[in-house]
Parts: sequence; structure tokens; C-alpha cells
Amino acid sequence: MKAHELQGGFGIENLKPAERPEPKPAAGQVLLTMRAWSLNFRDLMMVKGQYNPKLRLPFLPLSDGVGEVMAVGEGVTRVKIGDRVAGIFMQKWLEGEPSDSKAKSALGGAIPGLLAEQVVLEQDGVVHVPAHLTDEEAATLPCAAVTAWHAVVTAGGIKAGDTVLTQGTGGVSLFAVQFARLLGAHVIATSSSDAKLARVRALGAAEGVNYKTTPEWGKRVRELTDGIGVDHVVEVGGAGTLGESLTAVRMGGRISLIGVLSGVGQMNPLPILMKNVCVQGIFVGSRSMFEDMNKAIALHRLQPVVDRVFGFDEVQAALRHMESGAHFGKIVVKR
Amino acid sequence: MKAHELQGGFGIENLKPAERPEPKPAAGQVLLTMRAWSLNFRDLMMVKGQYNPKLRLPFLPLSDGVGEVMAVGEGVTRVKIGDRVAGIFMQKWLEGEPSDSKAKSALGGAIPGLLAEQVVLEQDGVVHVPAHLTDEEAATLPCAAVTAWHAVVTAGGIKAGDTVLTQGTGGVSLFAVQFARLLGAHVIATSSSDAKLARVRALGAAEGVNYKTTPEWGKRVRELTDGIGVDHVVEVGGAGTLGESLTAVRMGGRISLIGVLSGVGQMNPLPILMKNVCVQGIFVGSRSMFEDMNKAIALHRLQPVVDRVFGFDEVQAALRHMESGAHFGKIVVKR
Amino acid sequence: MKAHELQGGFGIENLKPAERPEPKPAAGQVLLTMRAWSLNFRDLMMVKGQYNPKLRLPFLPLSDGVGEVMAVGEGVTRVKIGDRVAGIFMQKWLEGEPSDSKAKSALGGAIPGLLAEQVVLEQDGVVHVPAHLTDEEAATLPCAAVTAWHAVVTAGGIKAGDTVLTQGTGGVSLFAVQFARLLGAHVIATSSSDAKLARVRALGAAEGVNYKTTPEWGKRVRELTDGIGVDHVVEVGGAGTLGESLTAVRMGGRISLIGVLSGVGQMNPLPILMKNVCVQGIFVGSRSMFEDMNKAIALHRLQPVVDRVFGFDEVQAALRHMESGAHFGKIVVKR
Amino acid sequence: MKAHELQGGFGIENLKPAERPEPKPAAGQVLLTMRAWSLNFRDLMMVKGQYNPKLRLPFLPLSDGVGEVMAVGEGVTRVKIGDRVAGIFMQKWLEGEPSDSKAKSALGGAIPGLLAEQVVLEQDGVVHVPAHLTDEEAATLPCAAVTAWHAVVTAGGIKAGDTVLTQGTGGVSLFAVQFARLLGAHVIATSSSDAKLARVRALGAAEGVNYKTTPEWGKRVRELTDGIGVDHVVEVGGAGTLGESLTAVRMGGRISLIGVLSGVGQMNPLPILMKNVCVQGIFVGSRSMFEDMNKAIALHRLQPVVDRVFGFDEVQAALRHMESGAHFGKIVVKR
Repeated sequence: MKAHELQGGFGIENLKPAERPEPKPAAGQVLLTMRAWSLNFRDLMMVKGQYNPKLRLPFLPLSDGVGEVMAVGEGVTRVKIGDRVAGIFMQKWLEGEPSDSKAKSALGGAIPGLLAEQVVLEQDGVVHVPAHLTDEEAATLPCAAVTAWHAVVTAGGIKAGDTVLTQGTGGVSLFAVQFARLLGAHVIATSSSDAKLARVRALGAAEGVNYKTTPEWGKRVRELTDGIGVDHVVEVGGAGTLGESLTAVRMGGRISLIGVLSGVGQMNPLPILMKNVCVQGIFVGSRSMFEDMNKAIALHRLQPVVDRVFGFDEVQAALRHMESGAHFGKIVVKR
Repeated sequence: MKAHELQGGFGIENLKPAERPEPKPAAGQVLLTMRAWSLNFRDLMMVKGQYNPKLRLPFLPLSDGVGEVMAVGEGVTRVKIGDRVAGIFMQKWLEGEPSDSKAKSALGGAIPGLLAEQVVLEQDGVVHVPAHLTDEEAATLPCAAVTAWHAVVTAGGIKAGDTVLTQGTGGVSLFAVQFARLLGAHVIATSSSDAKLARVRALGAAEGVNYKTTPEWGKRVRELTDGIGVDHVVEVGGAGTLGESLTAVRMGGRISLIGVLSGVGQMNPLPILMKNVCVQGIFVGSRSMFEDMNKAIALHRLQPVVDRVFGFDEVQAALRHMESGAHFGKIVVKR
Repeated sequence: MKAHELQGGFGIENLKPAERPEPKPAAGQVLLTMRAWSLNFRDLMMVKGQYNPKLRLPFLPLSDGVGEVMAVGEGVTRVKIGDRVAGIFMQKWLEGEPSDSKAKSALGGAIPGLLAEQVVLEQDGVVHVPAHLTDEEAATLPCAAVTAWHAVVTAGGIKAGDTVLTQGTGGVSLFAVQFARLLGAHVIATSSSDAKLARVRALGAAEGVNYKTTPEWGKRVRELTDGIGVDHVVEVGGAGTLGESLTAVRMGGRISLIGVLSGVGQMNPLPILMKNVCVQGIFVGSRSMFEDMNKAIALHRLQPVVDRVFGFDEVQAALRHMESGAHFGKIVVKR
Repeated sequence: MKAHELQGGFGIENLKPAERPEPKPAAGQVLLTMRAWSLNFRDLMMVKGQYNPKLRLPFLPLSDGVGEVMAVGEGVTRVKIGDRVAGIFMQKWLEGEPSDSKAKSALGGAIPGLLAEQVVLEQDGVVHVPAHLTDEEAATLPCAAVTAWHAVVTAGGIKAGDTVLTQGTGGVSLFAVQFARLLGAHVIATSSSDAKLARVRALGAAEGVNYKTTPEWGKRVRELTDGIGVDHVVEVGGAGTLGESLTAVRMGGRISLIGVLSGVGQMNPLPILMKNVCVQGIFVGSRSMFEDMNKAIALHRLQPVVDRVFGFDEVQAALRHMESGAHFGKIVVKR
């Protein structure tokens, strides 16, 4: 059975095909034949050695994938042969609060990932995916969609009439747009490109702000909300954008910190205090959130945004495409 | 200035026209010329002496109405002349938790109501209404809509993918259907009539159950949710329907108790315990909930369901129409 | 190995000693040598056939017990040989919300209980107990204490300065007194006996009301709170006492419904609505609540109230003692 | 009537006595004869021009004070002549969520403060203070105590058995220690001085960490919690200490950001994300929080920590004492 392993060193070029023995499910486990995967920025950082420089090689990357159950171990009751399931990001975060031990079960990081033709997971570590989705679409859910759901719905408690600000057009941000709309919120999106803004508007955003042409976009967002500020910011930039986000958010509002793409930096925490803002770190979410989200996706036949689909042997190209930043939505790999 | 007062005794027939002096706004107050009112079941009970048998007559009924600001007292900053506003149900429940003193400020009950050509209210006791609504539509909001919003959104925290059960086709129930849909929920509605169920479906309910032809409707609702039960019940019947609602609700679910139309009765509280259910009493809501709701109504250009509009001199007929139970949505009175 | 089984029919007299094969732990399981057990009212109802008339006999009763780990199956990491642990009430409610499948894993009810010299449980189904407790004390925790914690702390969110009303002197009620005190609340307790009230006061209650001599105790409690009402009622009576509880609770307050000792009955739900009260059904709780509670018990070296300790061969006498209603706190059985 | 005004420029030396006309209460207002005041770090910054460089002079500083009601305007029902009350920090934040307009009503900042023999406030802007407190003690509550209560109780939801980390020995931190103890939490305190740590321990902290001798105190705190981290950090330092706080807090924990004493700085937000931490800005709180807190303080006869009491004519000395950083608890000014 074929897999793609990071071998001999970090770097996209070191992600190579490898032949591995077929895994077998023990008691409580399921064997999946994988059909599709999706990439997250974390996967790119992992491969390039930026996420965990001490990662032991060879390493099997990727947290997100959907497959078919081919065999089940003794005592498996949650799924049956033929079911289509996705792995959950942290294999041990089923419900309740996060913990260190749950965090240490993240696929494609703390433990090996899914970039193989066949994988074995605990039955507790998989969920059924909505029937109306293609394999490519279903593969986009485990990390980006669950993160957006956790931020906007579980922790954010967004309600109809609220205003949500999203940043950019990566996978999490677009899911956040879609979920915020499902719950009846008013969405303002930022992007570096007017063309992308037009696409986010088509997805449901009511307003778009080009942060290249409007560097003080926080002020602009504030104007768009009658000077009050938005209820919720889905923050993917970190230190570099948090300042503008703090301008954009209303007194008593909430910033979901889900990415730190802009890295470490100078930051003034004073507005957090003065505005009674909650900055909530969001690191994916539990299986229970995934299942709640799937109910909403299925009910509304929501369509994840797939940017481009690569073949199983084009994983390097897929990662390079992510590196370019040109994507709009999720990058998928398919067998 | 003309008003309709309950004079000499309880009973619809004792609600009679009366000439009253024109009120004048003191400091912090506003004078409204009323344009439209809506009826609630509470108004009917009040007039018939069933709500508060000790009510001092003559009495000016009705909690719900919308009017235009004609004059403002000293220090008024929240509204200006010409604004279109509605009174809030409890004049002193602006935000935060309910309290005895807030409850003692309910219009058309604890204090006189709005059924007059002109009324004076504290500036804190009014809110602007969404611009896209007609006066008739705007008049439906203060009691029924705020109650439904409080139940489904503020206290219920409904999210996309949740399942909500509504009962009947009164004002609160139809607003609950509409708000649940705004937030992306799946709605199951009950009614005594297939014709009404067809209309609730048109409003957004996905399923309808006729409780006349299906007396064990709780069981039926359970089947419609794959045996799990609904997340949220908007309960308007009280003791007579709570048993079926407890069958219909899921383990750990929530029942918003907003009406007790079926009166006092035999009740088995055991399922509340065994299913970890929350039965949350809802008595209208705060101004802050009203304002949040208005943002959602305005954003989605939501259309309240007006059953029938009566003239200012047809208030008795309007109350008799409510008494008949034939209505679908809100009964409105207009000058 | 010896156990006590309900054999041939319901009734305390049918709870008889039986010899059973020694159980062995499979993968993921632990073997416990039991040291002490405690009784709950549910156990008495179970034995008398009042809880589940369809219970299949012979049946091993009792949900609560503490034992020593004597052997562990493959892959066990949560505990080691020699550890002292208690079983959790619902073996599958580890954290998060309740569900039907979790409820179907309740010891001594949905599944066999712990009244044997040796039992085997899943490693996920046990928790360590606080070191300062005797075996007898530790055995009181799984049902009554977790229920009280769930009611007062997890769901109730009691804070310093709040007022909590407890009813009677059963296990749950006394734990509720103790936990409410730990969190800084003011406690008012009811009982049928002045002698018992004196003991509840010694445990931390600030006020006691004798419901025999003060049948309108709801009104009395209201007076004790300056006419405002209590923030939280720990309701163990059900339909028969809920009316007085609704008088005693403040506008916007909370009633934790944890017992229905007084059975089905006539009930007027109107005050739930008019006072915006939350009636929250509480059916024990999760392992996560158990662990949180243990942290508090250990930190404060809290002492559970043990009424009387019976020998392993005196289980019938222990149940009859519970039946008499004479107890104050928990009835324990010890080897 | 005498007041102390900031005149002619910023700086402690410019805070000078001034004679002002006796104020009179209008409708809805109360006239207070002040008895005691307390200082907050914000007052020092205000006087030195660091808080708001555009502050219009002359300016009456100080947010915190307690006085006796000497006269009431028409329609005043909340208080009566002879009552002892404190002003609330934001005169318009009575309950519910914060807002821009509420924030613009902060005493001694957005509006003039209380450093005069007599002041007039809206009746809604005062609260009764617990009877067992001296005037000096009661004067410490409005800013520091309410901030600590908001952080630890209202937003933090601390429960018995939780672990709370406090920083330093300023007013907010010591109140946080006391409130955390009232609710049954385990407290770890940091300070630059072993002598101060001994005093914090006497106040209820279980552990003390000297951040001068243990610069990596985050790691040390983590060790003190078996490697798990604390549930809640009361953060007063801001950018300079947030890094260590993020080390000290547990996965899924909470940091209340109530001060930024260490100023703007380099900060790495990554751990917020990776640990699912909530950083909640806290800017004092509402009147409703103040009243809840007072119930707890009165019930437990809690004693605020008064560092030193200065005379009304020693305000400059009092501010210089605060500037020195030598205080432990609150600095008070008394007539």
C-alpha cells in the first residue's frame, strides 16, 4: 500500500512515495481506504519543519481525509463496512473541554497523518460525513470547517443579526463566512484582492474590504457598522493583524484567534482591556462539534469551496500551490 | 383624544370608547401618536378578568403598539420627533436579568396599556422599529416576537442544524418558526388543522404534525428525529401538553415554557429529571433582546404574519376573533 | 466470590447472597476488590420493583462503590494496581452532554451494579477518590455527591453571596448544603424535624425551616430573603413540593429538579413562566463533573455525612433503614 | 465646598485645593457628602497625563469614593437621606453588556470624579455599601473590587477546586485572592517580595512565587499544578507578563486581562491559539456586578485590605505613595 512520507529532512521535495504494509484493525479499530484528502496551512508548515522542528522522520503528514470503511475490529459499533467517514483532527477530543492529552492526539502532527492509501483509526476517531458531499468536499471538513464552526458557533454563539468579520480567503475564513450566513449573521470580509472579494460576496459576505488598498481596514470596518464595530472577528493573522481587528471589534465583542499567519510581533493589548474584548484561541475542535456541524451542513446542503483538486501523486504540487497563497478555499488531493 | 377603556366590569362588551385629556411628556418622556396595535392572548384574558381579577377599572388595555413621536420632554436623547417607535412590554426591563420591579412595569397589566390615540412613555421605554415593516407589522413585535426571540435565541441559543418544535399557529409560535429558520434550524410544527400546517410549512417548517389526528404527537415527533427527540420545544400549552413535549424532546434538551393555554393540570415531572431537560419559563424579554431581534428582522427583511387588521373602533370584534381561535398569526388594530 | 443478587422477585427480602465466578479484566478493563458501597433511594426503588418493573432477574444492584484495583487488562493507563477508585454512575458519560446511549450505561439499573466482592469495569468507568476520605466516605460520592455538584455547581453556577434552598436531609441535599457553602453561598434548609435542622445548621446552613410546622414554607423562605426569593432550589420532592419551591424561588431563579420523591401530581406551571424560572432536571452527572468535584473535596478536606455503616451481609437491614426515612446523610455498606 | 482639582497642567504637584459652589441635586439625583476615597493606578496615570493626554483641565479626579446622602432630588426612590453609598465606576453601566456610551460615563476620566467634599450623582449611579465596612474600607470597592469580581466571578465563573493565579499585591490582585478564596478556589500568588508573599498567604493564597528570584515563574506555576497549569490567571501586567501567564495557564484556561502595567510590547499570540486560551479583557464592571459582590462581601464579612489612610489634604502624598509601588492593598484618603 502506498503512502507519501516526509523522508530524510524537511521540505516539500522530501515528501516522497513509500510502500508500507497494509494495516489491520485491532479491537475497536477501523480500516479505511482513503479517497480524498485536503491540505491545511499546518500541513505545509509541518512539511517545511516550521511547525515542529523536532518532528521525527520519516513522517506521514496530513490531518484531513475521507475514506471508506473496509474492515472493522472486534467490538466496533459506531461504523460498519462501506460507511464513508472522515478522521477527526484530535483523535481523543471527542467532547467536553480540550486537554493536553487530547491535544497530543492530533493527526499529522502529534501522531502520524492520513496520507496513505489505507489507514487504521480507532472507531471513536472517525465521523460519518454528510451524504450530499463529494469525497473531495467531504475531505475539507476535519480541520478548517471544524475550526470555523468552533469559532463562530460553539464558542462565538453567533446569532441572526450579528456582524462577523472574516479575513482573507483561506479555508477557515470561507467556512466562517458560510457558517455565519447559515446562522443569519451579516458578514464583512477582507482580502488583498478585489477579485477574491467579489467571490466572497458571492458566497454570502455583504461587504468586502481590500486590506491592501485600505491598510487601516479596522477603521473602515468600524464605519461600515455605524461606528459601533463588529460583534465577532475571525482572526487568522495574529500579531500583525490583531491591532486592526481590535479597532474593528465592538466594545464587549469577541475575536476568535485561529491563526497566526503574520507571526510573532509587537502588540498592544490595551484595547483588549479597554473594550472588554474576549480573545478566544481556537485550535480546531471536538468530535461533538464536528457532528453538530455536519447536521447543519447536511440540512442546508452546504457546499464547501474547493479551490483545486490534485492527484495522489501530485501532493508536492498541491503543497506548492498552497505555498503560493493563490488559492481560494480548500486544496484537495484525490486518488 | 380617544381611548378604549375597560369600564364597569370585565368582559369584551365592557371595553368602550372614552374621551381622555391629551397627555404631555415630562422630562425624559415622549409623546406618541399611536398608529397600530396588536393583540395578545394576555390582552383577552385581561379584558375577561382571567389574568388579574383584582385589576382596578377603568383600565386601558394592550401592551403592543407602534406610534410616531410627536413631542419629547426635556433631556430626551434616544428618539426625536417623527421617529416611529414601539413601546417595550415591561417598561423597566431594559437589559440584564428579570426582577420583581421590572415585572411590575408591564404595559396593559401592571400599568395602563396603549389603546389610546396618544400615549406618553419614558424615553427608555421605546425602541425604533425596522424600517421595512408596515405599521401593522411593526405593531406585532413587542410581546409575541420578543417572547419567541427570548425563547429560541437568547435563552435557547439555537444554532444551525438544531431541531425546534413549535406548537400551534399563534403569534409567538409563528415568530418562533421564523426565528428558528433565520438561525438555520430544522422546524417541526404541530397544529390542529392540516390547512394551517400547510401554511406553517410555507413559512419554513420542514414537518407538520396534526395533534388532533395524532394525539400521541410526542412519539411522532420523536420518530421524525430518528428516535432522538428535538433539541428545543417552544411550549405554549402548559400542563396539558407538557407531557407530550417531554416525550418529544431529546435527552438534555430544552423546553421554553411561554404559555399555559391548557391551564393547570396533572403533570409528571419525572421525565424532566430522567432526561436532564431544562424547562425554562419565558415571560417576554428585555429591551436589549428587542433591539437584537430588530437587527435580525431588518437584516433579513423578515415579514411578521398578520392574520387580520381591524379598525380602531373594532377592538371588540378583534378580541372576539382572537377568542375564536381561528387566527393564524397576529391580530392587528389600526387607526 | 460473593455477591448479593435480587432473585426470584422484587422486594428487599429477595436480595440474597450468591456465589459468582471471579471476573477477569479484558483489554481496557480493571478488576476491583470492593471495599464499601453506599445506598441511594434509586437502589431501594430498584429492589422493590418501583424503578423498573421490567428489570430482568437475577440482578446485581447498587450504583455506588469504592474498591481497590487488583488487576488491569491490556492497554490500561488511567489507573494502576493498588489504586483506590470509585465507579462512575453512568459508565459512558465521561464528559459533554448527556445522551440516550450514555443513560443506558447506568450501574445498578441499565447495567448490573457493584454489590459484589469483585467487579470488572472499563478503565474509563472509574475515578480516583480523594485520599483523605475513608472507604466508607468515598463510597458516598458517585450518585448523590455528583448529582448535588452537577445541580449546584456545573448547571447552577452558584457564586458567593447567592442563596440556595435545600430540602430534607437525604444524601443529595446534604452534599448540596456542603457544596453551596464551599462556593460561599447562603443556605436555607427545610426538614420535617427540628433536630435534623439543627444538624443541617451545624453543617453550614444559615437558616432552617420545618415544613411540618410551616406547611407554607415557600412563603417563609421568601420572607427570609427580604421578599425576593432564593436564587437556587435543590428540589427533591417533585410535583408535591414544586409549588412551594416556585413560591420560594426568585424571579429569574433556578430550580434543580433532582428527585420526585412525592410522585406524580397536580401542578401549576404558571409561576415557571411568570417568574422566568429555569427548572433544570438533573440526573447524576459526567465523569468530568465527578473529577472536578473531587478536586474541591480534596482541597477543602470535605467530610461526607455518613449516617450509619452496615456490614456486607446486612444489606437488607441497610435498605430497610433507608425505607424508614430516619437517616441523616448516606447509608453505607462495608466489607 | 472644597475640592482637589488638577489645574494648569499634568503632574501630582498640580493637584490643588479649590473652592467650588455647593452642588444641588436635580430630579433623580442625590447629593453626597463624601467621607472617604480610594486611589487606583488609573487615577495616578490620569493626574500625570498618561491616561488621557487630551484631558481638559481643570479636572476633578478619582473614581472611587463613599459618602452619605444629604439630599435627594424629585423622584428619587433608590436611596434616602442618611444612606451610605458609593458611586459606581461607569455611571451608566447598570447591567447587561458594556457599550461605548456606558464607557463614556466613567467617573474621574470621561466625566469628572469624586475628589470633593460634596458631589451630585444620578440615583442610578450609586449603590449601598456593606454595613460592616468602615468608610475607608467601603471606599476601596468601586474600581478594584468590582474589577476583581468581574474577572474571577462574573466572567471567570471560578468554582471550588479551581486554581487561580494572581500577580502582585495591588488592590485588584488582593481582591482577586479574597474572592477566589470565597468561592473555594486554590490560589497561587506572585510578587517581587517574599515579605509581601507572606502577607498574601495570610490572606488566603496557598502558594507564593517570587518573580524576581524566579523569572520563569510561568514554568514554576505549572510545576505547582502537576504540570497541568492554572484554570485562571488574573493578569495585571500586559505584554510584559502575558508570555509567562500563557505558560502558567492550562489548556482551555482563561486569562483575565485587567491591567497593562508593563505596557506595549513584543508578544507571541501563538500559545493563545495552541492552548485554546480565552484572554478576556476586563474593564471594571456593571452596577449589577457591584451589587452581587456586595452580597458576598456582607455575607462573609470580608475585610478589604487597606494599605494606608491619608487625610483629605494629603492627596498628593497619597498619589506619591502609589507611585512608589510600596503599597500592599488599597491606598485610602479620608476627610
